[in-house]
Amino acid sequence: MSDSTLTAERIQHPPREELELGAVLHALSDPVRLRIVATLAAGGARTCGSFGLPVTKSTCTHHFRVLREAGVIAQRPEGTTRVNSLRRDDLEARFPGLLDRVLDTANTTTAS
Amino acid sequence: MSDSTLTAERIQHPPREELELGAVLHALSDPVRLRIVATLAAGGARTCGSFGLPVTKSTCTHHFRVLREAGVIAQRPEGTTRVNSLRRDDLEARFPGLLDRVLDTANTTTAS
Repeated sequence: MSDSTLTAERIQHPPREELELGAVLHALSDPVRLRIVATLAAGGARTCGSFGLPVTKSTCTHHFRVLREAGVIAQRPEGTTRVNSLRRDDLEARFPGLLDRVLDTANTTTAS
Repeated sequence: MSDSTLTAERIQHPPREELELGAVLHALSDPVRLRIVATLAAGGARTCGSFGLPVTKSTCTHHFRVLREAGVIAQRPEGTTRVNSLRRDDLEARFPGLLDRVLDTANTTTAS
């Protein structure tokens, strides 16, 4: 069993049917996390370090964990980092239209 | 100046243009608060004690304050209690479609 397999096993993701609305809304309620989600929605999977967020590495790690544990993002190990992707299909199946509504609202509110 | 006027002055509400998406999502991220909002959405203004919530009075007061400070509900004094109402027009103007999307999702998720 390789190191990367061990790392992968430690990254837990809630299954689609266990995603909870409250946890997802909480995950999206922070401006930094919302920015992460908007970036992923616009451009696909990204590594943790590539977001250019104005927060410390540990805070960044915390935000990614909140998003992952709520089921908003998936993380897979790649070398010494993690690649993040939006669980759009799972979110859409569980909470139809919610993610797009929040992202549209965030875009409109920020732009105005 | 009467006592009720003094009480009314202490109840602060953020103006429509200062409502923040993060604060609103956070306010809606708790199951008890979401239930309060769904009840208000279905039936208009209600007093704090009339919701029959499975929480202590102080927890209940806390939830109403979070909702009010986020701009989700308005509270006005009536005798020794407060009457709550949903700020639907303000929410709709600021975050079009968001509240209905969340409430529909909550209904669907709870029902399934």
